[in-house]
Amino acid sequence: MSKYSIILGNLGNTCDRFLSSGYKDEIPKAELIKQASEIEGVEGVELVGTWDVAPENVDEVGELLDRYGLECVSIIPDHFSQKRWGKGCLAAKDSEIRKQALDYTFDCVEMARKLNCKTLNIWPGQDGYDYTLQSNLVQERAWLKDAIQTVATAAPDIRFALEYKPKEPRNFSFMARASDTLLLAKETKLDNVGVCIDTGHAFVAGENVAESIVILQEYGRKLFHMHFNDNYGTWDDDMIVGSVHFPRYIEMLFWLKETKYDGWLSMDQYPYREDGQGALRESVEFLRMIEEKLSDQVMEEIRDLLTKGNAVESQRWIRKTFFK
Amino acid sequence: MSKYSIILGNLGNTCDRFLSSGYKDEIPKAELIKQASEIEGVEGVELVGTWDVAPENVDEVGELLDRYGLECVSIIPDHFSQKRWGKGCLAAKDSEIRKQALDYTFDCVEMARKLNCKTLNIWPGQDGYDYTLQSNLVQERAWLKDAIQTVATAAPDIRFALEYKPKEPRNFSFMARASDTLLLAKETKLDNVGVCIDTGHAFVAGENVAESIVILQEYGRKLFHMHFNDNYGTWDDDMIVGSVHFPRYIEMLFWLKETKYDGWLSMDQYPYREDGQGALRESVEFLRMIEEKLSDQVMEEIRDLLTKGNAVESQRWIRKTFFK
Amino acid sequence: MSKYSIILGNLGNTCDRFLSSGYKDEIPKAELIKQASEIEGVEGVELVGTWDVAPENVDEVGELLDRYGLECVSIIPDHFSQKRWGKGCLAAKDSEIRKQALDYTFDCVEMARKLNCKTLNIWPGQDGYDYTLQSNLVQERAWLKDAIQTVATAAPDIRFALEYKPKEPRNFSFMARASDTLLLAKETKLDNVGVCIDTGHAFVAGENVAESIVILQEYGRKLFHMHFNDNYGTWDDDMIVGSVHFPRYIEMLFWLKETKYDGWLSMDQYPYREDGQGALRESVEFLRMIEEKLSDQVMEEIRDLLTKGNAVESQRWIRKTFFK
Amino acid sequence: MSKYSIILGNLGNTCDRFLSSGYKDEIPKAELIKQASEIEGVEGVELVGTWDVAPENVDEVGELLDRYGLECVSIIPDHFSQKRWGKGCLAAKDSEIRKQALDYTFDCVEMARKLNCKTLNIWPGQDGYDYTLQSNLVQERAWLKDAIQTVATAAPDIRFALEYKPKEPRNFSFMARASDTLLLAKETKLDNVGVCIDTGHAFVAGENVAESIVILQEYGRKLFHMHFNDNYGTWDDDMIVGSVHFPRYIEMLFWLKETKYDGWLSMDQYPYREDGQGALRESVEFLRMIEEKLSDQVMEEIRDLLTKGNAVESQRWIRKTFFK
Repeated sequence: MSKYSIILGNLGNTCDRFLSSGYKDEIPKAELIKQASEIEGVEGVELVGTWDVAPENVDEVGELLDRYGLECVSIIPDHFSQKRWGKGCLAAKDSEIRKQALDYTFDCVEMARKLNCKTLNIWPGQDGYDYTLQSNLVQERAWLKDAIQTVATAAPDIRFALEYKPKEPRNFSFMARASDTLLLAKETKLDNVGVCIDTGHAFVAGENVAESIVILQEYGRKLFHMHFNDNYGTWDDDMIVGSVHFPRYIEMLFWLKETKYDGWLSMDQYPYREDGQGALRESVEFLRMIEEKLSDQVMEEIRDLLTKGNAVESQRWIRKTFFK
Repeated sequence: MSKYSIILGNLGNTCDRFLSSGYKDEIPKAELIKQASEIEGVEGVELVGTWDVAPENVDEVGELLDRYGLECVSIIPDHFSQKRWGKGCLAAKDSEIRKQALDYTFDCVEMARKLNCKTLNIWPGQDGYDYTLQSNLVQERAWLKDAIQTVATAAPDIRFALEYKPKEPRNFSFMARASDTLLLAKETKLDNVGVCIDTGHAFVAGENVAESIVILQEYGRKLFHMHFNDNYGTWDDDMIVGSVHFPRYIEMLFWLKETKYDGWLSMDQYPYREDGQGALRESVEFLRMIEEKLSDQVMEEIRDLLTKGNAVESQRWIRKTFFK
Repeated sequence: MSKYSIILGNLGNTCDRFLSSGYKDEIPKAELIKQASEIEGVEGVELVGTWDVAPENVDEVGELLDRYGLECVSIIPDHFSQKRWGKGCLAAKDSEIRKQALDYTFDCVEMARKLNCKTLNIWPGQDGYDYTLQSNLVQERAWLKDAIQTVATAAPDIRFALEYKPKEPRNFSFMARASDTLLLAKETKLDNVGVCIDTGHAFVAGENVAESIVILQEYGRKLFHMHFNDNYGTWDDDMIVGSVHFPRYIEMLFWLKETKYDGWLSMDQYPYREDGQGALRESVEFLRMIEEKLSDQVMEEIRDLLTKGNAVESQRWIRKTFFK
Repeated sequence: MSKYSIILGNLGNTCDRFLSSGYKDEIPKAELIKQASEIEGVEGVELVGTWDVAPENVDEVGELLDRYGLECVSIIPDHFSQKRWGKGCLAAKDSEIRKQALDYTFDCVEMARKLNCKTLNIWPGQDGYDYTLQSNLVQERAWLKDAIQTVATAAPDIRFALEYKPKEPRNFSFMARASDTLLLAKETKLDNVGVCIDTGHAFVAGENVAESIVILQEYGRKLFHMHFNDNYGTWDDDMIVGSVHFPRYIEMLFWLKETKYDGWLSMDQYPYREDGQGALRESVEFLRMIEEKLSDQVMEEIRDLLTKGNAVESQRWIRKTFFK
């Protein structure tokens, strides 16, 4: 069975552009961490910069994690929720902003070390553009690569998982798809730079996530991290896993196991109107239900289905194997 | 348990624009009908004009259906596969074409009567437009409505199920969505004009099919027919039911039962590279698996979930109820 | 030339779920109204409840509008940005919330009367659902219709323009498409209930906006209001008009004129990172550029193109007529 | 001004899955070539295997091209329209099919040499999969790469432009996006393997084509070829250039020029119901209209816009520069 984690903030209040004060009430950090620890199977949490952790409270957060027996799986630097990053962060047109972004990322490296956390999950949501004729694509993409390269070179003890997403908050992100991001990671020529797949982001990109897993693993074992959620296919709805798509998660978990992925399966949702703990627990339960089925024999059966490629047989097998 | 049927041609050869001779070999009609009769649970077939049935062979087809104990559930007039309909059919700009289309539809009425078939399933695939500034939208939409009204007035013994689809083969269809089509049906002021939902077409339209069922039933019990298949959400992939989406079919079958739909559940797929019989059988099995669960108690449980609206609880209930 | 207006808040600060404090600074209301008045061609503004106008400041706002010579084109009741509406508003499961929503809508009627404003633009963004098996679709849709009917019956001096949108903030809205919303409007049997098209919402719904205009006008002259913006087709990006699609706006303006629409053309954007006044001005300029071309002769040329339906000729005509 | 070409078959008959005999009549090859030569600005054609050229008629086709003064810009091997490729071609599960596909590709190399054509445009449309659990993704992707590598190694005088497309005719293609395909091209470590962008395929993939151009050029000057058409964003509608999107083509042509792309601009459309010659001519005219604007001064103005990144200013500049 894989190691499961959650993004801590998913348990808290969540807002959107219409209801900016959020759909729920704020919950104290200690309570969030306690709730995380109560979800069966969850052994770690990811912390978002600013929202969950900052230099000022990193020690306190570390103590709380210890108290509740949770590992810090990754820190997600806050490259997106500060007004200064509004027009770009690591790849901002303004060199002063780029410098601040790099400095802040180094701060996150320090926080990670304090928390004995091995991974920075980099999601540069504000790096991209919205309109035609708005971006010097060559220059700005280069700045983004350089920034990653600089910090990853300086922190060889930390793994940098680059998380891609086609759009939102920019209409076009520079790290948009699995392969784009893999190209950037490879361009750094650093072993500690890889890619994070968020299943929902990949759905929006039109990817078959199983194939994205394979591409990242085949071109240099570059799959560093996994974020799980579900959506209706055109937007990052950040829903409970399996609430829309079911069979695709079987294929994902098969290929994660088959390619010997040994990282975390982390839940990344936005339960705007739902009980956060319940929504995350349900996702973990759903994935574990599938994982439990993946015995050696079932893995062999799946390999056989893939070799034959008979879709009718595959669908029948799924029905017989998973449904009552 | 509902009555299940299939579209006969789904068992035969299927082509696309790149492989116009088709992915499979042609199968004789008698064999197609025999194969249909072999699928457990299937009691009827739908016949596509030209492809499956024409004035010349209607008696022969009727005898074959009798021999294999199958009901003719609907005739789908061929308003799409003839060169003369290429730029429009019932709503063509050319009045001579419109006349031919109407005449042909009356021929289909006669065929239906001969086959003791109660429904014409009208899918005017060529009625629409492709480009900006290409259609007199007021005039052409009126022609389409007039044609339906004319034939349905003249054949009160036949039910006309209007099947909508947002695009393909035109980039924009005049009958594009459930509500557009319902408006047109209501405009005829005829009790024998209603709507057919194709689940895949509705997914492409961004509809929650369950809600489309409710809308059609609530605004005058206008849901006349159901076509089932699955797809990835942006195109009419015409796949095996449940191969992409699972939970949504539960909601559909719940609301069909709740609104006392008593029509057919008909499979409409394009198994380009699959064994046709196997692909259709698998869809029927999948839907029956769900239907079998919908006991009085389960219906009550679902009503309770809908009243509460707690998404976590609904997802947990689905997992516990349907998965091993 | 049509009458042009803007939504006042478009000039102010805008946020999203990641940067909830907003991308820009807050601007005082007097300054917003002054800026609106400075945009050439703009004669009116729409006011969003809570954000722009409330019972406490309605008189003050009215004075400011007078001072700057602006008409109040509509009030958009705040049915979306208050925590109490988070799980539904006019169609909430909680009867107490429904009652509050209705009361609040009546307050908006009063504000409209005070401002000599003839239209309430109703966008019930929180009325819908997110997950499978979460909504009693029959009941909740009926509550929504009843609420509209109640307030519109009581305020025959006010026109109610129902604004549809397929999703966001809910994954599925009850008022999702032009025809769905028209059906609801017709169901009220009230002359003062109609529909507002937001061009971006319609793009996301896969509609050809020109055809939505025609449908609403043909089935009872129910097009009450127009919101303009542009997007990339899958999400409500709320961009400058014409920044993505160009030819479609020609077709829209043609049909607005052809069907004798005499309402406002109102700009509804979210210039997250742009100068708000500049972004709105550019949209107005773009639409006026097209409108200025629509002379009697050009209207006749377009009618001729629509009758012929020759796409090559239409595209050539667009190129020759609009481009240098 | 760039070199313009067309795909010859675009001038002929075109079919879809519903009207497999095609929307138009067949036109003799000599007439197709004559029509191509008549389009102002067009200097070359691309030939599709089987449809346009085969070992049996290659000499005759060569003579016709000479007579009409047209260059053979590329051969597009027919990896998609033969029944034997129905379940896969270069990456088929059946080793005998893979061998036939490779042999056939070598035949195309020979034809290219005979026609003094420097490019094979490889579009392996049948290589991919449709359903979950249907493909051994590692193995089949490797077969595809090996096949390309084998033929490109053996024919160093020919450039292999790999054309990607997210879906159709398979629900998932192995060459799906710019970066996926670039990774595969780079994996061959061959200078004569690069990528072809089809603008419509890239739109369906959600790419900003300008950025795809930049990525391919920056990571090793791997943009080998360009196919032009337009669509509504979710499907390969293969429409006249500029009929949906306008500003994005400015950005594409800017970056092609800026990155010193010196290949062909080739039209690739499916004018199902349009006059083929007219539809292609209109696309060429549209692109040339934009290209003619790209003087040194305008290029400098655009660089300035990209550096500033002010969307309002960019949109105003587009309006002032291109519209009457």
